[in-house]
Amino acid sequence: MAKATDTLDEGTDETVALFESIHNPDALKRLPADQLPELARGIRDFLVESCSRTGGHLGPSLGVVELTVALHRVFDSPQDPILFDTGHQAYVHKMLTGRHDFTALKAEGGLSGYPSREESEHDFIENSHASTVLSYADGMAKANEVRGERERTVVAVIGDGALTGGMAWEALNNIAERKDRRLVIVVNDNGRSYSPTRGGLAEHLSSLRMAPGYEQALDLAKSTLNRTPVVGQPLYEALHGLKKGVKDAIQPQIMFEDLGLKYLGPIDGHDEPSVEKALRQARDFGGPVIVHCLTQKGKGYAPAENHDEDQFHAPGPFDVTTGQAKPGPKVEKWTGVFAETMVELGREREDIVGMTAAMLHPTGLNKFAEVYPDRIFDVGIAEQHAATSATGMAMSGLHPVVAVYATFLNRCFDQVLMDAALHRQGVTFCLDRAGITGTDGASHNGMWDMSILQVVPGLRMAAPRDAERLRAQLREAVQVDDAPTVVRYPKGAVAEEVDAVGKLGSMDLLRRAEDSGHGKDLLIVGVGTMSQVAVEVADRMADQGIGVTVVDPLWVKPLDEALVAGAAEHGLVAVVEDNGRTGAVGDAVSRLLRDHEVDVPVRSFGIEQEFLTHAKRERILEQQGLTPQELSRKLTETVSRLVEDESTTEPA
Amino acid sequence: MAKATDTLDEGTDETVALFESIHNPDALKRLPADQLPELARGIRDFLVESCSRTGGHLGPSLGVVELTVALHRVFDSPQDPILFDTGHQAYVHKMLTGRHDFTALKAEGGLSGYPSREESEHDFIENSHASTVLSYADGMAKANEVRGERERTVVAVIGDGALTGGMAWEALNNIAERKDRRLVIVVNDNGRSYSPTRGGLAEHLSSLRMAPGYEQALDLAKSTLNRTPVVGQPLYEALHGLKKGVKDAIQPQIMFEDLGLKYLGPIDGHDEPSVEKALRQARDFGGPVIVHCLTQKGKGYAPAENHDEDQFHAPGPFDVTTGQAKPGPKVEKWTGVFAETMVELGREREDIVGMTAAMLHPTGLNKFAEVYPDRIFDVGIAEQHAATSATGMAMSGLHPVVAVYATFLNRCFDQVLMDAALHRQGVTFCLDRAGITGTDGASHNGMWDMSILQVVPGLRMAAPRDAERLRAQLREAVQVDDAPTVVRYPKGAVAEEVDAVGKLGSMDLLRRAEDSGHGKDLLIVGVGTMSQVAVEVADRMADQGIGVTVVDPLWVKPLDEALVAGAAEHGLVAVVEDNGRTGAVGDAVSRLLRDHEVDVPVRSFGIEQEFLTHAKRERILEQQGLTPQELSRKLTETVSRLVEDESTTEPA
Repeated sequence: MAKATDTLDEGTDETVALFESIHNPDALKRLPADQLPELARGIRDFLVESCSRTGGHLGPSLGVVELTVALHRVFDSPQDPILFDTGHQAYVHKMLTGRHDFTALKAEGGLSGYPSREESEHDFIENSHASTVLSYADGMAKANEVRGERERTVVAVIGDGALTGGMAWEALNNIAERKDRRLVIVVNDNGRSYSPTRGGLAEHLSSLRMAPGYEQALDLAKSTLNRTPVVGQPLYEALHGLKKGVKDAIQPQIMFEDLGLKYLGPIDGHDEPSVEKALRQARDFGGPVIVHCLTQKGKGYAPAENHDEDQFHAPGPFDVTTGQAKPGPKVEKWTGVFAETMVELGREREDIVGMTAAMLHPTGLNKFAEVYPDRIFDVGIAEQHAATSATGMAMSGLHPVVAVYATFLNRCFDQVLMDAALHRQGVTFCLDRAGITGTDGASHNGMWDMSILQVVPGLRMAAPRDAERLRAQLREAVQVDDAPTVVRYPKGAVAEEVDAVGKLGSMDLLRRAEDSGHGKDLLIVGVGTMSQVAVEVADRMADQGIGVTVVDPLWVKPLDEALVAGAAEHGLVAVVEDNGRTGAVGDAVSRLLRDHEVDVPVRSFGIEQEFLTHAKRERILEQQGLTPQELSRKLTETVSRLVEDESTTEPA
Repeated sequence: MAKATDTLDEGTDETVALFESIHNPDALKRLPADQLPELARGIRDFLVESCSRTGGHLGPSLGVVELTVALHRVFDSPQDPILFDTGHQAYVHKMLTGRHDFTALKAEGGLSGYPSREESEHDFIENSHASTVLSYADGMAKANEVRGERERTVVAVIGDGALTGGMAWEALNNIAERKDRRLVIVVNDNGRSYSPTRGGLAEHLSSLRMAPGYEQALDLAKSTLNRTPVVGQPLYEALHGLKKGVKDAIQPQIMFEDLGLKYLGPIDGHDEPSVEKALRQARDFGGPVIVHCLTQKGKGYAPAENHDEDQFHAPGPFDVTTGQAKPGPKVEKWTGVFAETMVELGREREDIVGMTAAMLHPTGLNKFAEVYPDRIFDVGIAEQHAATSATGMAMSGLHPVVAVYATFLNRCFDQVLMDAALHRQGVTFCLDRAGITGTDGASHNGMWDMSILQVVPGLRMAAPRDAERLRAQLREAVQVDDAPTVVRYPKGAVAEEVDAVGKLGSMDLLRRAEDSGHGKDLLIVGVGTMSQVAVEVADRMADQGIGVTVVDPLWVKPLDEALVAGAAEHGLVAVVEDNGRTGAVGDAVSRLLRDHEVDVPVRSFGIEQEFLTHAKRERILEQQGLTPQELSRKLTETVSRLVEDESTTEPA
């Protein structure tokens, strides 16, 4: 194994050595309790050092060191499955279950950034979409009952933020139904509505509640508890008992107990013995229990603890001493272009409002929020609500722009279809991180939206190929007031700008076959940033004597019917897109031609319809054959074969 | 207007006359309060009489007569929009806003069974998928704020059952965030956990809570309140305060107040003056308020009130006096075949469990529940939770069969994809009411599943053409333990059984072109019950001298590659399916052939990708050209044209 610790100082080396002796939960269970603080230090040093090189979900993992140690000391994984919601806080779990090589974290061949069933029998959930874990846990607990394995305990770890997702509520409602299924729900509460003194307070409160003289503690609580103005979510406040005054602030169990769930806490999540004690109580209770742990994101690494925006939620490589990001080239990003355009649109039109689902900064809507604080709505991890409340806004005369990652749009498909589209409302959905994102694994790739949205009647969808097109198409999208619109664009730096050489209907012509001096052998439809690839393919093929036209449809739904005539003039049509091949633009082009009785051969290139293993985007594009080299090779072959077939065709 | 009341007796005629004088909410507001009971009687008589002829959502509408009257007397629709969740209780609303002609309810050209924006400015939400209304309301209230129209009030009516859907919780969490947006949430609580005396109790309790001596009321409450054993949902119990003992039973507001929402109630929803009073209080409060109304489904019509299963939720035509359904032909239904097969499977395999989302009876899983009460899980209106908890069960060694209506699968697309499929778990989804259902309008048609499920990697999907195939394919589906499977079948009577004349790979050959004595002019892929239509098309075309092969792929995902060789032998391929055309089997067949470089022309026939207006299924099939006549006409034309083109093709 590569020694990620080589550069650490001597004192740190010893603590890392202790951590490296832990290869499975049994070894952890045997470790004397007095060595646990040293173990925790070693884990943190390793995490910081390792993530400083590879980047990764450092802040969330630093926050659950003691909690994860306690979980593996109390429960018997994998017989007692320990399930993590979203899984980005699972690094410590990986380390304690024998995975110590983080050198290639999230890269091809290296550890996944999330739990991975292939990596370990201790891992169960690979999906990193939030708020699902309680449903898995409910299913497993029911299965234990049906199979007569009632002694097993299912453990689910969920963040306070994920409780804003409706699925979590659906699950709680079902979990609470029966009192005899062993299920421990750990709420990993790292929110920021407590002041930095909260750890001490929580510990104090926890002990107070077990002691006599509880009432007398109220004055102390009043003076210690800080309500911060950033608290946004009523659920959050209910969780912390803030709604009913300070007395309830030390009884946050009320909400859960309304549903009939046993509640333990709040516990200081960084006090390992306390967490262990609570988890043992919960385990022995024999039914569903909530254990409420207060933790601090980024705990134990000062630059993370002091980071205002997100406590090093998922930094790239950084300098360990300063916490500063390692300098990279300064580039314009798709998110930035969206953010700026939204600020402009906000200035021009008072009816435009921004909406997001717990992704204000990642989507760039924070810029809009700064300028128009009364026109921004962050609904929590609640994509369904986002889509439908945006529809309500549109019915009442606003034009909402809902910004989320492309992969998360899946979560409100029914709402886009049955609420926004059925009622023909002008809601614009902006999908960041569309196409292959790569390193975050299967559930982060935005490779589904161009397929499922094709089925939504009336919806219009744009896939801009560069920054200029993003600005222009977003402007067009917010003009549409009788149908939902979608603008989808990738992660990272904007693509190189490509000027049109002409128009085909409303579409951009990027290359004309005739300009190459060859025939109309091939028409390529380039979707979004695959247009740049298509242009390169055309230029390569022209060098081989094959005439290629390239068209960027700009709007991939509905397709401009001018494409039909254009296609009919060519011997072959190819579609290249950064989306799953099934049901996406390739299929739409083929159907459009069939419906017009134009039976020119069509070939479609995109992502194979499978769950992709994590790797860098460029590597995946290569694996998928979506490079200019591979595409021109295949298409040259096809053109040649078709010409050959043609020449051997006998007249009827 | 057709007089639906002609057959009523004299006494009833007068009350109906009063109702018929109300053509808008203003007229209702002017009506003296002492005439309201007569108005309510007239509305009920009309509803019963009218639904006895056409069928319809009688029970829910009878339950909200006084509530709807009160809503329109207190609020100023449409400036104060009155929004109904699912909308099947909106008949009274329709009547009070001027729609009195129910003679063609749900039929072509008649009133929609749900609110309809085309019918009235008083209608807003047409989507009948549950739990969405609070999100619309939140959006509208926010829009009122942004637009400076703070004096308007948004009113949302939601059933207690719909509160089990996660979206409702996402919305409540957002609604509670701000205290100055005018939003009245009416919980129409018609659950059955109260004994029939509840109306009196509730009224009593309501007054008690405002009076001194509140504590003394507890003994009375204890003796009056019945807990019934059928209560299934903790949320439900929390709503009724059942979790914390009788004291809380008269404080059901606790759960809402945890979220910081003002609560009024419980109110006897059939005492119009009380409801009106509460609504006025709520309207004048100036912020979000919950008004909790207890109502009785089927109220005022004895056969409905006494109907055990669902209080005439949505009967077909019936006899007014007896409440007996009008006799129709006794036929075998798809739901029944599924139900029986599940009971057999349950006997053969202990690992098979049933799951549904508040649709135990409609899906036929009640039969399984009767025999295997420990292996059935009804999770409430919570499709997302159903899919993911089923995945958890499968991870723990069970094989769950999740039965829902096809249109509702949209609501858990992300969970089918990212939970069941990503983790390669053996979960079987059975989709009843697939294809065109017709009379319930756009949001009930099951025309999306075969498209969106095509994109799910690894998933296998069957579209059985008749009862025998449903039995066999359901058995095959539950054998698959490394991927989700789907079996989809239509509403109503099973289709006529069609025997295969041979096999093409794993697929059923239903007709062979060569058997007709003609050439291999056309291959039709018949999907599900469209296979029967395809056979009729083949026979008609054979009479015209055109040779047609018909194949039923049985499994529409993945497609058997034997189809490629079969297609290559024919001059034309056609796909006929009972699903939206976009991204469904037609596109999959075309892509399969393209990927194998077989460029035979393909034509696909299915439902145009649009929201369908309500009408009978047969009528819609006709409108969509999915009849044997129309299909054979079009295909004959295409075959002729292709032959002609072929004969005029010059050799290269």
